[in-house]
Amino acid sequence: MGAALDPGAAALFVDLYELTMAASYHELGLVDPVTFDLYVHSLPPRRGYVVACGAEPALDYLEGLRFDDDAVAYLRSLRLFDEAFLRRLADLRFTGDVWAIPEGEVAFPYEPLLRVTAPLVEAQLVETSLLNGLGFQTLIATKAARVATACAGRSFVDFSARRDHGRDAALQAARAAWIGGAAGTSLVLAGRELGIELSGTMAHSYVMRFGREDEAFLAFARAYPGRAVLLIDTYDTLAGARTVAGLAPQLRADGIVPRAVRLDSGDLFELARAVREILDDAGLTEVGIFASGDLDEYRIADLVRRAVPIDGFGVGTQLGTSGDAPSLGVVYKLVEDTTGPKIKLAPDKPTLPGRKQVYRFTEHGRAAYDVLALADEPAPGGRPLLAPVLVQGRRVGPPEPLAAARARCAAAVEALPDHLRALQASGPSYPVRRSDGLAELVGRLRDERSASKGG
Amino acid sequence: MGAALDPGAAALFVDLYELTMAASYHELGLVDPVTFDLYVHSLPPRRGYVVACGAEPALDYLEGLRFDDDAVAYLRSLRLFDEAFLRRLADLRFTGDVWAIPEGEVAFPYEPLLRVTAPLVEAQLVETSLLNGLGFQTLIATKAARVATACAGRSFVDFSARRDHGRDAALQAARAAWIGGAAGTSLVLAGRELGIELSGTMAHSYVMRFGREDEAFLAFARAYPGRAVLLIDTYDTLAGARTVAGLAPQLRADGIVPRAVRLDSGDLFELARAVREILDDAGLTEVGIFASGDLDEYRIADLVRRAVPIDGFGVGTQLGTSGDAPSLGVVYKLVEDTTGPKIKLAPDKPTLPGRKQVYRFTEHGRAAYDVLALADEPAPGGRPLLAPVLVQGRRVGPPEPLAAARARCAAAVEALPDHLRALQASGPSYPVRRSDGLAELVGRLRDERSASKGG
Repeated sequence: MGAALDPGAAALFVDLYELTMAASYHELGLVDPVTFDLYVHSLPPRRGYVVACGAEPALDYLEGLRFDDDAVAYLRSLRLFDEAFLRRLADLRFTGDVWAIPEGEVAFPYEPLLRVTAPLVEAQLVETSLLNGLGFQTLIATKAARVATACAGRSFVDFSARRDHGRDAALQAARAAWIGGAAGTSLVLAGRELGIELSGTMAHSYVMRFGREDEAFLAFARAYPGRAVLLIDTYDTLAGARTVAGLAPQLRADGIVPRAVRLDSGDLFELARAVREILDDAGLTEVGIFASGDLDEYRIADLVRRAVPIDGFGVGTQLGTSGDAPSLGVVYKLVEDTTGPKIKLAPDKPTLPGRKQVYRFTEHGRAAYDVLALADEPAPGGRPLLAPVLVQGRRVGPPEPLAAARARCAAAVEALPDHLRALQASGPSYPVRRSDGLAELVGRLRDERSASKGG
Repeated sequence: MGAALDPGAAALFVDLYELTMAASYHELGLVDPVTFDLYVHSLPPRRGYVVACGAEPALDYLEGLRFDDDAVAYLRSLRLFDEAFLRRLADLRFTGDVWAIPEGEVAFPYEPLLRVTAPLVEAQLVETSLLNGLGFQTLIATKAARVATACAGRSFVDFSARRDHGRDAALQAARAAWIGGAAGTSLVLAGRELGIELSGTMAHSYVMRFGREDEAFLAFARAYPGRAVLLIDTYDTLAGARTVAGLAPQLRADGIVPRAVRLDSGDLFELARAVREILDDAGLTEVGIFASGDLDEYRIADLVRRAVPIDGFGVGTQLGTSGDAPSLGVVYKLVEDTTGPKIKLAPDKPTLPGRKQVYRFTEHGRAAYDVLALADEPAPGGRPLLAPVLVQGRRVGPPEPLAAARARCAAAVEALPDHLRALQASGPSYPVRRSDGLAELVGRLRDERSASKGG
């Protein structure tokens, strides 16, 4: 993507402890392969699922990982690392194997979105970047899927660029929102980098620069025939709508129809009804109504439930920041090394040991339950969700088109039980069962740990 | 910064409507200078102020603005723009004047953080990037200043990289957090790009890889003598502390003292007290206690109020996403063009017309009130906050050192009335008065607009 860091900078996108731990491992010769799981440890409020997203860009990062001369020189300047480790970094490439749940698939707590098996130093050094990338995109794809649910077939576009947390966030938000169901984005750079449809209207400043709405509307409608979306709330929404209506004969004479008018403030339900009537009375039945202004899935669902005559929604801040739940509890945990499966028992967030696979079981076309099993354990009738994406540091195939992830997301959300797809998920959470093999392993490791307590 | 886009990509970081409006302006010959204000229209919940941040990186963007061949070629492919406009873009540089409130200063709604005067096409095209950059950094600097208030003299570091919204966000968060009062960051790239102190501990996976805490602690303490922070909650926090205590003779024989132990889960108040006792009993009085784990200003304030024996805090997700208020209502509004001052009357968010200056008045060393005045209006006794930073597209001086912004922030927050510095701001909001000249102008423009309603 266009916001890609140069390779040395990307390699330095690590928390310091990744490097200090890696240096210690290197010095002690702890270099054998290990396995880490990257997963969500709990669902954000009101969510019944997450939409896995961000794996493809993560593979770009892993394939391109290298510490260039500048990066190594900077690390040397910290006086924390010996030359042997710095030489290891200069030669380091990511040589591991990665399995992933495909982008757009729905997932649940403790299901590995990514399973990384690599020499310990490599597996450790990629933690920060993987968490950052997968966590944010999964957060936004999930939010977008919720907005799509609220829209119930109407369209929405990503207008979040100005309020997102930096430019990289805006690019990633446009991508994740599109996978989650957005029809397009206002962000031009995202259009270029991702090939997704661009969408735009006009700003209040455009009307203000003309001083008169009629002149501004005429100028814009003529500049973009058939595509112009006219913003009508700069001074007074209904007066703005009447101005558009008054221009109808003139526009018709020119053979021009604006695509839509846009509401951006006030009571969108009442205003949309009144504006629809004004437009229809002027014969502008083909001019749509587009709405924006602090929208989120809750406000859209309310409007749609009341059958508001709005054709499309622009969703900005709340979509691109996942405003009601702006972070996701993604973690990256050691689950196995050459001495065997590993467990962490800290009371808040225990881990599940061993290399695992996730199987989904469906009944009557609906997702019924998942089974978390050990990687080599059969689960007859279940569909395995984790697939290999990187083998010895190289992709197993070309990057998947974004449209495939988008289609997968729509189908996966559709297949969810209604109470989990709801904007206020309620009732029992989705069943994620542990296989017999996994349950036995957890019990055995807990017993061993108790026996050696404090060891 | 290291996350800088290439110039063409940076130029394409615009909402589509900036380009469609600019093309229309260009075609109509509306090319004279205009002035836009960038400001916060309302404070996020619980906030009594914001900390202005992000102006310096914005100047880098403005100075470097150019549409390269690839950018122009992409825009041509959209079939929205004529060749004359594309040629204008190919030649475009930012040639305007910019005034800014210095980074680290506190500010209030409707006070321009940035005032941009430039030819209309240029001023329009920079909107998205300016809002994105200033908005996010102001959000995070404000959050960090609140965390600093909660810490009441203890130190905190930015641990947010893994949960921030992309890599650019993490770099910017490290910068804004440091300006707001953080002692350092865990993000290595931010250390290199910004020259701020790096901080790090160890992860649970390190302990898990050894399987035994004593071996892991010894290895890490020896690898980083005097600097190691030992994470003691992988299995059981108090057992972990006793393990450190048990190693004391061995470490002392080696001449090694760990810098601190780290708590990352459980009841931090009770655990810190018990751990402090265990360490002190073993003679490890110089070993500090560092705490992390879903911390924010509210939890820290509660711990500090109870005199918890914690020496430093690692603050991650909540700091880097401003978790309790993850967006800021920043807007960029036309306030003047060659025909005179401009106003927008939409009921939710009216604008204030004209080129303005902000004056701060202090009483007994405390900020007492601000006056929003027209740019050429005197305000005796007030300190002007907006200063010129870019003249005809060039910086008026070298970039300010980050430390100056950090010092300014500490002083400005200290000078606030107590009820506004509080984590739950209450009572009257900070007085931002309108000068006579501004009040008269608003009245006149409202009257004119009413007279020509619907025009």
